[in-house]
Amino acid sequence: MITSKDNDKIKYLKKLKDAKFMKEEKKFIVEGNHLVLEALNAGILLETYSLYDNDYHCNNYLVSDSVLKSISSHKSVPDIIGVCKFIDEANDFGNKIIILDNVQDPGNVGTIIRSALAFGFTDVVLSLDSVNKYNDKLIRASQGMLFNINVVSCDIKELIHQLKSNKYDVYGTNVINGINVNEVNKDAKIAVVMGNEGTGISDDVKSLIDKNIYIKTSDKCESLNVSVAASIIMYELGGK
Amino acid sequence: MITSKDNDKIKYLKKLKDAKFMKEEKKFIVEGNHLVLEALNAGILLETYSLYDNDYHCNNYLVSDSVLKSISSHKSVPDIIGVCKFIDEANDFGNKIIILDNVQDPGNVGTIIRSALAFGFTDVVLSLDSVNKYNDKLIRASQGMLFNINVVSCDIKELIHQLKSNKYDVYGTNVINGINVNEVNKDAKIAVVMGNEGTGISDDVKSLIDKNIYIKTSDKCESLNVSVAASIIMYELGGK
Repeated sequence: MITSKDNDKIKYLKKLKDAKFMKEEKKFIVEGNHLVLEALNAGILLETYSLYDNDYHCNNYLVSDSVLKSISSHKSVPDIIGVCKFIDEANDFGNKIIILDNVQDPGNVGTIIRSALAFGFTDVVLSLDSVNKYNDKLIRASQGMLFNINVVSCDIKELIHQLKSNKYDVYGTNVINGINVNEVNKDAKIAVVMGNEGTGISDDVKSLIDKNIYIKTSDKCESLNVSVAASIIMYELGGK
Repeated sequence: MITSKDNDKIKYLKKLKDAKFMKEEKKFIVEGNHLVLEALNAGILLETYSLYDNDYHCNNYLVSDSVLKSISSHKSVPDIIGVCKFIDEANDFGNKIIILDNVQDPGNVGTIIRSALAFGFTDVVLSLDSVNKYNDKLIRASQGMLFNINVVSCDIKELIHQLKSNKYDVYGTNVINGINVNEVNKDAKIAVVMGNEGTGISDDVKSLIDKNIYIKTSDKCESLNVSVAASIIMYELGGK
């Protein structure tokens, strides 16, 4: 049993919480049984650090409560922490893509990923300035669904060009010149761009988009949380 | 200008961040221009503490940056903090009520309040064990919409009894024995109960409910974030 916080493996785990180191190592950690199981099922679980033995068919290191506490980002320390490898990103997209342009809140992005899978969207694309997809809060908000749907980080301007030449209908979200979401042709290949929480879609991305979707709201409150707006659009347009 | 963190008024503001003291004083604070303006428009702004003069027609105390920093809960310290009085709770409900049973995350509840107003729901009811409605994160997630819709904290079991005797259709949220949300009679008086993030609707509340709504999802992910589920239901059933 590892009881020292200065153990090399434990120091390595702590470093894995740093986004830059994470990217160099192509590994990330998850906390708690639910996420460890989701990682196992997705075939990305490499090893676990736990208070107890388990049957997750990978190396399990027994560690003390205080060691787990020293690694954990959570208030209530989990029984188990898993080390996972980065998930391969697929470049052949499906028919229903949600694109996030500089969306920053990990809770919002995680929630959008969860809804995308629930409503039959095929891919979630993050702009390079959006939050890191292996952010701990994002993974938790996605309930581990990040492991079950294609989530890609890329230059979304290039992507939009490609999608348009591949006959996707690429939509922004804007009441002005917008189509009510329940009148959009669902049978087409669709990509929908959602903007930053405060500032919306950036100007250079907006200039590439010629169609907009809106969601009908009351005059009393015209704006929605971005994860709610994205979820309603995917609820209406997804292949669920 | 107040420059001392030990000033009695500043000490009072800091105490107002405590839920118990907040309830005794029937006052709460908001941070930043957007929320202060929303409070002003709702007629609940009592006084402000700010780096600059303003024309908000209430007492404004000039304070130093470090004093604001000592009060603020945020990483980026706001220019202005407002003291507001509690909002009156109306007991005559409208036709579309969303009821939250032990919903704990302030971001979820704030987001639900924002969506309720956007989709023409009339009232949001919090069970007594849900998060405090004047929680700072809740108010921010609601974007101040908390001030523009009737939000009531009460014993929801008593309320459900009353609503049923007043001919409301009271729905829980459950796939089993559920009606697809897009097949629910929207013209009726409707109350929808949403449960806790982890455990759902509590057993004693469930026993009072005889109808359920579900949202169609893919087999790959059957559960949604509670604020997403509530928002889709309100989108489908609201009077927007």
